[in-house]
Amino acid sequence: MSLEPHIATVFDRDLESVQAQIMTMGGLVEAAILDAAQALEMRDEELAEKVRQADAAIDAIEAQVQADCARLLALRSPTASDLRTVLTVMKIAAALERCGDYAKNLAKRSVVLTQMAPVGGTAGTLRRMAKTVQLMLKDALDAYIARDAGLAEEVRQRDRDVDQMYNGLFRTLLTHMMEDPRNITAAMHLHFIAKNLERVGDHATGIAEQVIYLVKGSLPEEARPKADLTDSLTGADL
Amino acid sequence: MSLEPHIATVFDRDLESVQAQIMTMGGLVEAAILDAAQALEMRDEELAEKVRQADAAIDAIEAQVQADCARLLALRSPTASDLRTVLTVMKIAAALERCGDYAKNLAKRSVVLTQMAPVGGTAGTLRRMAKTVQLMLKDALDAYIARDAGLAEEVRQRDRDVDQMYNGLFRTLLTHMMEDPRNITAAMHLHFIAKNLERVGDHATGIAEQVIYLVKGSLPEEARPKADLTDSLTGADL
Repeated sequence: MSLEPHIATVFDRDLESVQAQIMTMGGLVEAAILDAAQALEMRDEELAEKVRQADAAIDAIEAQVQADCARLLALRSPTASDLRTVLTVMKIAAALERCGDYAKNLAKRSVVLTQMAPVGGTAGTLRRMAKTVQLMLKDALDAYIARDAGLAEEVRQRDRDVDQMYNGLFRTLLTHMMEDPRNITAAMHLHFIAKNLERVGDHATGIAEQVIYLVKGSLPEEARPKADLTDSLTGADL
Repeated sequence: MSLEPHIATVFDRDLESVQAQIMTMGGLVEAAILDAAQALEMRDEELAEKVRQADAAIDAIEAQVQADCARLLALRSPTASDLRTVLTVMKIAAALERCGDYAKNLAKRSVVLTQMAPVGGTAGTLRRMAKTVQLMLKDALDAYIARDAGLAEEVRQRDRDVDQMYNGLFRTLLTHMMEDPRNITAAMHLHFIAKNLERVGDHATGIAEQVIYLVKGSLPEEARPKADLTDSLTGADL
């Protein structure tokens, strides 16, 4: 029996460690998105502040993942699918870090919005949208861990729902702004929140596509499904 | 004399090749940003269409850079500063690809906006903002090639100007929307364009920070300068 463990075992152990960090990070990001949306709906400044502070922990894990992956590349010189996996982990960490930023931004805006009158039932719609993208993130990460291309494909398809929710909100907010100009500032913030949640959906979809690439060796052939809204007057689908 | 070139030479040659691609990509992205802003101001749908089509070329170079970098990691197993350089190149390529997406989105919105009345002189302001972030991108890439931490630091400082331009536009657009609700839809698009240009500035700053990290081995100590606007009523600085 060799004293030196097999190189693949060492690599696998290192990989498991960074994957565990990714899952921790994912959990924090998911909680931040839900908490931020709840802070918005309930006008809960304390919860918003908690989300803002949690972002530092997310950023710290991301930095650690990137450093650990760089060390893994330097020490283990992985090739082929091992290399692809490390690069995928780095991309997932970067995507999660961005999603954490969006949650933090949502929390900041929710505090600003406590100074203003609510705009219809848009905060509730945004909470449902947040729940949808949080589940997409969760499933994309689960698909990564299980190397489940089927689940990843399902996440990709769900991005269409998020785009439709965003388009609906865009129109609703326009209506509220036109009906009462006092809604304009609040509606601008709500619109940005909607756009940021839609971006979280895009990142979840990006992670899902990475999983498909990892499992199948190629990216999905058809173009990503997009809600077929080409209304050039409002251009809500931009 | 060895028939095998020194490993460092091979690495350097490969690196030069991907760096050349990065510079080509940077040139295309810079042109796309300026063209898109001009298409907006001149209501030039043909130019906007050109920008939309150019994005495919930018995406193709990015995919090539990522593939070449992965090959470089697999074949050359770089360590220490060589590894850091390859990872930096991958990050720069991803950032440029995102900036290309922003230019394409600007071009799409400029076409939608030809259907609507101009909103004050905001298209001109956006063109100046586009010029500012294009120069930041250019200087960040030049700083990378020259490993010039001084120039990179200068780029970082200029991000503050972009934030101020954005904050000014946010307020101007709010005023136009409140004065005349018919401006609302156009102003929403112009606001997104402003936000996207500000994001290009953020990406240029991110590239500059990567350069500083590459040269000095650590990220800048002080937090990134942010325009000190904490106006919690409009929250323009979010």
